[in-house]
Amino acid sequence: MSTRIITLTTDFGSTDHFVGSMRGVILGINPAVSVVDLCNAVNSFDILDGALTLAEAYRHYPADTIHLVVVDPGVGSSRRPLLVSTSHHYFVAPDNGVLSLVMAREERITVRHIAAEHYFLQPVSSTFHGRDVFAPCAAWLSKGVEPEKFGDEITDYVRFTLPQPKPTGEHALKGVVLKVDKFGNLVTNFTAENTPAIFTAGAQPRIKVAEAAVAALRSSYSEGQPGELIALINSMGFLEIACNKAPAAQVAKAGRGAPVVVEF
Amino acid sequence: MSTRIITLTTDFGSTDHFVGSMRGVILGINPAVSVVDLCNAVNSFDILDGALTLAEAYRHYPADTIHLVVVDPGVGSSRRPLLVSTSHHYFVAPDNGVLSLVMAREERITVRHIAAEHYFLQPVSSTFHGRDVFAPCAAWLSKGVEPEKFGDEITDYVRFTLPQPKPTGEHALKGVVLKVDKFGNLVTNFTAENTPAIFTAGAQPRIKVAEAAVAALRSSYSEGQPGELIALINSMGFLEIACNKAPAAQVAKAGRGAPVVVEF
Amino acid sequence: MSTRIITLTTDFGSTDHFVGSMRGVILGINPAVSVVDLCNAVNSFDILDGALTLAEAYRHYPADTIHLVVVDPGVGSSRRPLLVSTSHHYFVAPDNGVLSLVMAREERITVRHIAAEHYFLQPVSSTFHGRDVFAPCAAWLSKGVEPEKFGDEITDYVRFTLPQPKPTGEHALKGVVLKVDKFGNLVTNFTAENTPAIFTAGAQPRIKVAEAAVAALRSSYSEGQPGELIALINSMGFLEIACNKAPAAQVAKAGRGAPVVVEF
Repeated sequence: MSTRIITLTTDFGSTDHFVGSMRGVILGINPAVSVVDLCNAVNSFDILDGALTLAEAYRHYPADTIHLVVVDPGVGSSRRPLLVSTSHHYFVAPDNGVLSLVMAREERITVRHIAAEHYFLQPVSSTFHGRDVFAPCAAWLSKGVEPEKFGDEITDYVRFTLPQPKPTGEHALKGVVLKVDKFGNLVTNFTAENTPAIFTAGAQPRIKVAEAAVAALRSSYSEGQPGELIALINSMGFLEIACNKAPAAQVAKAGRGAPVVVEF
Repeated sequence: MSTRIITLTTDFGSTDHFVGSMRGVILGINPAVSVVDLCNAVNSFDILDGALTLAEAYRHYPADTIHLVVVDPGVGSSRRPLLVSTSHHYFVAPDNGVLSLVMAREERITVRHIAAEHYFLQPVSSTFHGRDVFAPCAAWLSKGVEPEKFGDEITDYVRFTLPQPKPTGEHALKGVVLKVDKFGNLVTNFTAENTPAIFTAGAQPRIKVAEAAVAALRSSYSEGQPGELIALINSMGFLEIACNKAPAAQVAKAGRGAPVVVEF
Repeated sequence: MSTRIITLTTDFGSTDHFVGSMRGVILGINPAVSVVDLCNAVNSFDILDGALTLAEAYRHYPADTIHLVVVDPGVGSSRRPLLVSTSHHYFVAPDNGVLSLVMAREERITVRHIAAEHYFLQPVSSTFHGRDVFAPCAAWLSKGVEPEKFGDEITDYVRFTLPQPKPTGEHALKGVVLKVDKFGNLVTNFTAENTPAIFTAGAQPRIKVAEAAVAALRSSYSEGQPGELIALINSMGFLEIACNKAPAAQVAKAGRGAPVVVEF
């Protein structure tokens, strides 16, 4: 058997002991597991950002991978810890919606409320369940403990859907910037599913983000002229507003939450 | 035997070749070892920050883990390289106090001055001992070279203690912010050991950081009202000043070194 | 055999799914490979920065390591994907010069244009060849697919040389700051090879960066006085302008591209 993999998706960043402590707890329980960073720089407290990042990357990992997800602004409150099984993967995460976009992609899911406190690191702190609850449960799972040992199935878990573009005026739709990526690209909530008309051959919609007009729909970054805002379908399937070798967020003076209008 | 683990704790950050070169040197000597990031974003030149991060995370790792620690503003001077053995772990680090808080936790420690230059990468630069001295020694140790082969025991190594809160006026203590974490939480030097009165049931001390008043002692972040400064015992055992889903450092206009006054 | 290693050098940063997706694609194809970060925080779109970081670190890795390099502002255009073999290592990268400094160090190199699309992740996006082209090719190579299976040898690949210092006036040379490192040190393009006179015993050249004068040539950071700009040969072999425990970039008000004048 190959080494089992546990991936980490957190908003803990890199400047503290948080992720290093979680890696230690996991390896202390199962020194043979491979701990892989999916992303530890989710925006602080930002469940949507964590959900987007996880949903895009998890499906590439091999079968039986355990995805440990800690974006957990409700730590220490009564929100529940979850263990979710899909046909290929496992997820250990707080019950706050951060798995929503995984759930939207997967046909069969089993959701359990983790209640077996004997797998936790004792004493459990009220501020760092990543270390005390989620990491040890993922590590015990990687050692072969059966999912049903962690707790009972539930159906009333928290789940959200992505905000969808809405009609505004007669021939226009209004959406939103979901995130700004490392390059300053603006990822919007328009997709080929919710707005197929954008992607029809020959369509020339007018696109505006905040107060800035997008010059044209292109198929790759390198087709943009210097300083020109372009739109394209990104590798996640979202309409993205970009600028060739420059941060569109600065060019457009727009960030997360900025309005995006598409007019036909 | 499980794969042996070497952890990295450095102030080298992520934007340069530094950590990638150290990983290469280690794997070039011992391709079978597992290199795990404990934390590579310690504040530049900040020995206290490195000491705090290391001391909090190291103890979770499995027995026989080698912790490689390079926060080394004295690189190229006569400060010595050390190999420290405790009952469960090994530490390879400069002799500048960065292991002080590990030493405070461990009952039995053996400290050696690394002098066996044949384990170094030659020629040794005067600016990057992480690559040329510390990484190769950790790698050779992971291959089974005995600690005594690296150099003789010493007892005059550098060691500091954390600054302690001091009385100020009749019913008050004055401490300090030790660090600001990724979420903007302010970690102070008050603990249940040095100031048990804070944590007595029913105690309602007045707490001030810089010019800002703390509203109340709580037990988790999620108990704070929006925009309200709260205090709690964090997962490291320190009194921490926080704000629910917001950076307390900004709310309180306070950073590392800011005064903290607790009044009874 | 030891676990095979694939290193990652990218400008994808840490805040998105990019690197996590690439790790997933690699491990999905070859769960037994070890994925190691060489550096994922190359400056956005900055081929020179990527080339410098890679060239400095790659040579420490064990024989047969595969270096996956994705600094790829031309993604989606007609720039070719390459597979380069040297006597000890493999490189998978875009044909944009990012391997130039590796090529300058290596005596024997074979360069292939990757054309075997059946190794790609389908459908291939036009914005993320790191995930769809480069990562799967590196993973298949790590599983033992022969280099010649990926495509034919070429000789017309893109290659650049580092900018060299040039005479300015009678006894002076003008160079440039190649990069600012994490500590604020200014790495210049002067080396012992292109300007041996700087490093002659007793030489006391006057060195200026932007408008700031350098106080003296030293051999280590710790020899600098507080606030004083010093110059030294860094661990990469470049003349570096530094400041003891402080960021020289701020002290000198200089950044990447700033002029550096050395006068004898």
